[in-house]
Amino acid sequence: MRLAHRLDHIAPFQVMDILARARALEAQGRSIIHLEIGEPAEPTPAPVVAAGMAALAAGHLHYTTALGLPELREAIARHYHARHGVTVAPERVVVTPGSSGALLLALGALADAGGEVLMADPGYPCNRHFARFLDLVPRSLPVGPDSGFQLSAPLLEDHWSAKVQAVLLASPSNPTGTAVDRAGMAAIAELCRTRGAHLIVDEIYQELIYEPGYVTALALDDGAFVINSFSKYFHMTGWRLGWLVAPQWALDGLERLVQNIFLAPSTPAQYAALAAFAPQTLDILEARKEELRARRDYLVAALGALGFRVPVRPQGAFYVYADCTALGLDSQVLCAKLLDEAGVALTPGIDFGTHDAGSYVRLAYTVPLERLQEAVARMAACLGRG
Amino acid sequence: MRLAHRLDHIAPFQVMDILARARALEAQGRSIIHLEIGEPAEPTPAPVVAAGMAALAAGHLHYTTALGLPELREAIARHYHARHGVTVAPERVVVTPGSSGALLLALGALADAGGEVLMADPGYPCNRHFARFLDLVPRSLPVGPDSGFQLSAPLLEDHWSAKVQAVLLASPSNPTGTAVDRAGMAAIAELCRTRGAHLIVDEIYQELIYEPGYVTALALDDGAFVINSFSKYFHMTGWRLGWLVAPQWALDGLERLVQNIFLAPSTPAQYAALAAFAPQTLDILEARKEELRARRDYLVAALGALGFRVPVRPQGAFYVYADCTALGLDSQVLCAKLLDEAGVALTPGIDFGTHDAGSYVRLAYTVPLERLQEAVARMAACLGRG
Repeated sequence: MRLAHRLDHIAPFQVMDILARARALEAQGRSIIHLEIGEPAEPTPAPVVAAGMAALAAGHLHYTTALGLPELREAIARHYHARHGVTVAPERVVVTPGSSGALLLALGALADAGGEVLMADPGYPCNRHFARFLDLVPRSLPVGPDSGFQLSAPLLEDHWSAKVQAVLLASPSNPTGTAVDRAGMAAIAELCRTRGAHLIVDEIYQELIYEPGYVTALALDDGAFVINSFSKYFHMTGWRLGWLVAPQWALDGLERLVQNIFLAPSTPAQYAALAAFAPQTLDILEARKEELRARRDYLVAALGALGFRVPVRPQGAFYVYADCTALGLDSQVLCAKLLDEAGVALTPGIDFGTHDAGSYVRLAYTVPLERLQEAVARMAACLGRG
Repeated sequence: MRLAHRLDHIAPFQVMDILARARALEAQGRSIIHLEIGEPAEPTPAPVVAAGMAALAAGHLHYTTALGLPELREAIARHYHARHGVTVAPERVVVTPGSSGALLLALGALADAGGEVLMADPGYPCNRHFARFLDLVPRSLPVGPDSGFQLSAPLLEDHWSAKVQAVLLASPSNPTGTAVDRAGMAAIAELCRTRGAHLIVDEIYQELIYEPGYVTALALDDGAFVINSFSKYFHMTGWRLGWLVAPQWALDGLERLVQNIFLAPSTPAQYAALAAFAPQTLDILEARKEELRARRDYLVAALGALGFRVPVRPQGAFYVYADCTALGLDSQVLCAKLLDEAGVALTPGIDFGTHDAGSYVRLAYTVPLERLQEAVARMAACLGRG
């Protein structure tokens, strides 16, 4: 007996091996600083937890409608207006089981088997694996510091083929933390419109942009399919809740698909998420965002002193993608060395694609500043820069 | 702009139109008895809710490992031993976002695009839609009262082709409530082994079988892929949690797939589900099961007096699939009439396939016995059998 061929293209995450090695070292009593995990260490904000507890107490535990609680879809739509000045009709918001669900839904609804989906290398590895799961052809275009590790309209044009059915952007990107600016996004949206391809934009780190000049794709293109999540900015990872904003014409098909493949998103998570937009929650989240910005500023500066190079200052998310060439080691070897000798876990570039992957590591600044400082001190000692 | 072709094959549920019409009538002040909804009306058992609340209070809200909490996988494995005398290694249990997630995972892992999946007509409509979503070819084989509305080894042999990659059984079945008995299951498992096809068994109603002689497929075939759910017997619908039991050889591939397409199942739902196997929870659930059995016995007898025919007494789930031919109306017409004139909502056979669909309606006995009695009285008056 064998598994389906689509699995031949789905590689395990290298970071899982690193995590397993880190856990083994911890079991031996070693102290490990985890900079390999893309999950905020902070808890779900108290008002959100309280709303979840109230939903459980009230017995709000039956199925909701497939597209999600109407009041949550309205709250998300209001958020776009309040934060971004963008008008989104609530019926265009589809609540999904995590942004994973939103991405599966968007790719499944928009691209035929054999169709090509253009995306960036380096990029979030699940993106190409989702495409493979649906028998689409992910075409990962090499991007580097010159384009801010992002796709651009000229690059897409250079690689266009008649089989392209969708372009998948992530802004800000995992692993690079870099975002597509307004002009770049507008040009890509225009190209997709002209060529008749769908534009899918992963904006799960959209609320974690620390610089001006970056907008949601919905501000520029009503036809874009925009994915977002309650996991990152809203700190609701384990609840598994996200959303997709789609153009009006696609909603009927999306609803049919959601009814069949998900039935409905988690009910307690949806009730909890209603409190995610409350002013007292947003106060907590904005304070955490400031803390993240401070960590970024510290880490980018410190990495330079360690001999890494950060060719593009990340505008958002909680990642730094650092070039380790000057340290003289392949990034996988360097990650293994830093884990074993310094007790600092990083992710090698190979997890995010193949383009120049041996030259880069990803650091997730999801731990408090003092832990980051300790990690830097340990790496300095290990690398002889102490 | 258009949607992917796979959506051409994904029809909306008729029951959604019925539900919408029922809600509209309710908005006009009409009393509607809902026998169209496959969701138990009873709340999640109190010990499960309490465990969920405790998880929220303790901040157990970060991602779990992709395959689920080890202690939950162990609890599910223990349940198979305690209830069914079957030994299942905990590592063979994959916790999923609902049984929908388990079915997507199993089909995606086991069948290649273009491969055929054999299933029963009538059957749960999502089954064929999941297959279409993955560009598989669902082949729905007509089944009737003579085979208990179930697939059998001879029927499968008659329809076998070289392209068959999986057989999908649902036992008990939605919409018919009928189960595959031990001998029938063993014969199908043997056929699949001989022909090199995967056997996927949807057992989400397995704990709601009211008669002896029916076993989990895992008792007969270690190689079967068995899907189950916390929604039906355990009354945790809105939590969206299910599981897949897979043979050892498939686990590595399944883990890679789960890491990518789901990341992990809901954390609070998993902590809540740990209490689903506690003795005090099982006492509640067994009492509810006895109530369901009483409803079935009442409804099957009452339908005969109304002029319906129930050709196969359902052994499980909470559905009766009733032949309405003697009433002289197509089932869609009959459902519309009973909704408009009697305020009783049923589901027409067309939602479950095309084979003889006009002759059947599905009744879900998910409402208390007194409501069922009221529904029968209303239908009797409407049909002139009062």
